[in-house]
Amino acid sequence: MTTVIGKVETRDARFPLQPGEGTDAVHSNPVYAYAVTTLHASDGNAGTGFVLTLGLGNELVTGAIAMLAESLVGRDIEDVMAEFGQVQRQLADHPQLRWLGPHKGVVHLALASITNACFDLWAKSCGVPLWSLLLDLSPEEIVALLDLSYLEDVLTADQATRLLTEQHASRPNRTGIATEGYPGYDTSIGWFGYSDEQVLDNARRSVESGFDALKLKVGSADTERDIRRVNLLREAVGPDVRLMIDVNQQWTVPQAIDICNRLKPADLYWVEEPTHPDDVLGHRALARAIAPMRVAIGEHVPNRVVFKNYLQAGAAQFIQVDCTRVAGISEFVTVSLMARQAGVPVVPHVGDMGQVHQHLVLFNHIALGHEVVFLEHIPHLSQHFRHPARIVDGRYRTPQEPGASADLV
Amino acid sequence: MTTVIGKVETRDARFPLQPGEGTDAVHSNPVYAYAVTTLHASDGNAGTGFVLTLGLGNELVTGAIAMLAESLVGRDIEDVMAEFGQVQRQLADHPQLRWLGPHKGVVHLALASITNACFDLWAKSCGVPLWSLLLDLSPEEIVALLDLSYLEDVLTADQATRLLTEQHASRPNRTGIATEGYPGYDTSIGWFGYSDEQVLDNARRSVESGFDALKLKVGSADTERDIRRVNLLREAVGPDVRLMIDVNQQWTVPQAIDICNRLKPADLYWVEEPTHPDDVLGHRALARAIAPMRVAIGEHVPNRVVFKNYLQAGAAQFIQVDCTRVAGISEFVTVSLMARQAGVPVVPHVGDMGQVHQHLVLFNHIALGHEVVFLEHIPHLSQHFRHPARIVDGRYRTPQEPGASADLV
Repeated sequence: MTTVIGKVETRDARFPLQPGEGTDAVHSNPVYAYAVTTLHASDGNAGTGFVLTLGLGNELVTGAIAMLAESLVGRDIEDVMAEFGQVQRQLADHPQLRWLGPHKGVVHLALASITNACFDLWAKSCGVPLWSLLLDLSPEEIVALLDLSYLEDVLTADQATRLLTEQHASRPNRTGIATEGYPGYDTSIGWFGYSDEQVLDNARRSVESGFDALKLKVGSADTERDIRRVNLLREAVGPDVRLMIDVNQQWTVPQAIDICNRLKPADLYWVEEPTHPDDVLGHRALARAIAPMRVAIGEHVPNRVVFKNYLQAGAAQFIQVDCTRVAGISEFVTVSLMARQAGVPVVPHVGDMGQVHQHLVLFNHIALGHEVVFLEHIPHLSQHFRHPARIVDGRYRTPQEPGASADLV
Repeated sequence: MTTVIGKVETRDARFPLQPGEGTDAVHSNPVYAYAVTTLHASDGNAGTGFVLTLGLGNELVTGAIAMLAESLVGRDIEDVMAEFGQVQRQLADHPQLRWLGPHKGVVHLALASITNACFDLWAKSCGVPLWSLLLDLSPEEIVALLDLSYLEDVLTADQATRLLTEQHASRPNRTGIATEGYPGYDTSIGWFGYSDEQVLDNARRSVESGFDALKLKVGSADTERDIRRVNLLREAVGPDVRLMIDVNQQWTVPQAIDICNRLKPADLYWVEEPTHPDDVLGHRALARAIAPMRVAIGEHVPNRVVFKNYLQAGAAQFIQVDCTRVAGISEFVTVSLMARQAGVPVVPHVGDMGQVHQHLVLFNHIALGHEVVFLEHIPHLSQHFRHPARIVDGRYRTPQEPGASADLV
C-alpha cells in the first residue's frame, strides 16, 4: 500500500498559559502557539508537524506553510524520504520565497513544520515510533535525508557516512537508554514571572519528583534580583542538583562577563543565551572569559550554517538545536552530526515540549554516540497532545506509538 | 502644525519584469515586489516606506507590517523620531512577534518598511529631502535615532557621537558630491539569464552612457561558462572599467577559493556573495585565501549584529547593507557607523532601486566621512516611482523633492 500525500492542511493552534507560565526577560506575555502542518495521505494516515511561536504572527507561518508545501502533493512519502535532503534543499531555495530568509525566520519555521510532518507520516506509514525508524536506517539512508550544502568545509556526505558507520559497532552499549528512559531537566520551576517563594517551592517539589537538574530564568534589569534568586535556589536544593540559568539574550557581552564571574560560586551547569543569538564572536569572547563556566545556545539559532560557525569558533559548549526552529528533524540531525564531530553535546531546546525531541535524543545517543546529558521538560501543553510525553522519576519514558508523537487532540 | 500618524495602510505591490531581468543563479523567475507601508498623517502628509521581496510571500510582510505598526497610531512623528532608537527597539522586541526572527526574516523586513515610512514622513513634514534632513541633525540627534543594543563591545553611543563630531569640521571638503552627483555602477548589463551577446551589447552601451563600473551575475553550475563570460566582458570593456561579479551564494567555500584564484587575471573589483550569507567564518577563510581580491557582502545580512561579526572577523571588504533588508534607514546608519570605525567602505545593495539609498550615500560621505565608491543602479522599476532616481553620465543627480523618494505612482 502506498502512502501518497493528498491534501495539505494547516492549523493555527494557540494555547493560553496560566499567569507567569512561559515568561522570561523578553517574552512577558507569551501564548504558546503551534503552526501545524497536516499531510493527509492516501492510506488514511495523517502526518503532523508543527513549530512553536508565541502567539501573534502564528498565521504568518501557516500562510508560508501553505505556499511551500504545495509541491509535495501527489508524491509518495517513501520517494520523498528516500531523497529528502534534495527535497528539502529545493523547498528551502524556492526561487521567490527564499528571499524572505534565506533559511531563517517565518519561511524557515514553515519548512520545519512541513519537514516534521513528513517524518511523522513516514514513521506512521511504517507503523513504528520515529526513534525506531531512524535507528533502522543505514548510514547512507540517513545521509540522504540531509541537506549538507554550505557545510563542505566541515562535514561532507562521506564524513557523515563514516561517522555513522564508525558508531555502529558500539551501538549495543548504548541501547539500554531506551529502557531506562532519557533523563529530563525541569525548566518550569523558574519562570521569570514567578516569585522567589514560588520558585523555591517548585524546585523542592521537582527534586522530590525525581529531577536532578533545574533551570532558572534570569536577565532582569535588576541584576541583584537575578543573583539573589540564583543563590537562594542553590541554597535550597544543595550542591548535588545541577542548576542552569537562562538569560534570554538580555545581557551585553561586557555585562555577561561581569555577571557570570559574580555567579561562579553558585556552580552553574551552564549559562544559556547570554546575549544576541546572532553574535557568534560575542559568545566566543564570553566563553573564553568565563571558562570553565559553559555557554549553551540554540533556541534562536536558525540553521546549520550559523551552528557551524558557533562550533568552529568554540563559542558554545552545549548545542541547544531545536527541530521547531531549524528546518525540522533533518536539519536537527545535521547539526547533531556536526556537534558530534566537534565533541560538543546536544541538549535540545524543546519548542515541541519534548514530544519529538524525546525520539531524537535517543537517536543521537545510540546512532551518533552523543553523550546523554538530559532533555528539557516543560509540561504546560501536555493535555493538548494525543500521546503526551510521560515523565517518571525525572525520566522520559520511551514512546511506543507510531510516528513522532506530534499529534494534537 | 503637528504631524500625527492617523492611519497605517499596507500595499502588496508586484511588478512583473521582462524576460531575463533580475535573474541570477538562485532567483530564476523573480517578480519585483514591494511590501509598502503608508503612514497617513494629520497634516495631509503621507510617509511611504517599502522593502523588496521577489513576489510570492510579499503578503506575509504586509501582514506583519499591519501587526507591528499599530502602536504608532496617534503619535506625533517629531516625538517618534526624537527617540526613534527606543521606538525601534520596542518594535523589534515585540514580546510575541520577536520569536519569528529575532531581527531577521519577515518580521524584520516589516520593521524596515515601517521605519522607512517614518523617515519619509518626517522629511516630508519638514519639507526637505531626506539627505538634507539627516545632514542638519546634531550628532546627538543622529545617535538618538539608532538602536545600538548588542553593539556595546564595538560601538557605544559615546563612540558614535564622537565619530560624528570628529567628522563635522571637515564636512565642507565633502559637500561637493551633492552637486557633482554620486557615481553609479550598472548591475543590469549582466543578468544571469542574458546571453553572452546581450551582456556584451549592454556593457558597451552602458560604458558609452557614462558608467565606468559594471557587474556580472555568475554562480552557474557550469563554472567554465562563468569564467568565459568574465573574460569576454573584460576583453570587451578594456582594463579601465571596474568589473564586479555576483555569485548569489552559489559556491562552497573551497570552490570559491578555487574559482576566485582562477579569475585573478580578470582583475575584478570584488566578488559578491560568494557563499552563504550566514557564514561569517567561511567568508573570513575565503577573504584570507584570495587577498588582495576583495569580498562584498550584505544584501542578505539581516541586522547590525551579523554585520558586527563580519567586521570583527575581517570577513568583508565591502559592506553592502541595504535599508530594505536591515531594519530600515536607522539600522543602515548604525551599520555605516560601525563600518566607518572599522575602515570598511559601504556600497549599498539597492532593494529600493537606489531611490532611498541615493540619500543615504550622500549622508555617509558628508557626515561620516565614508569614501565615495559608487551606488548600484537598477532601472527596471523607474516608471513606478513618483520621483524616479535620475542618472546622468553615470551619476545619480541629487534628489530635491521632500522625503525619501520612496513614493510609488
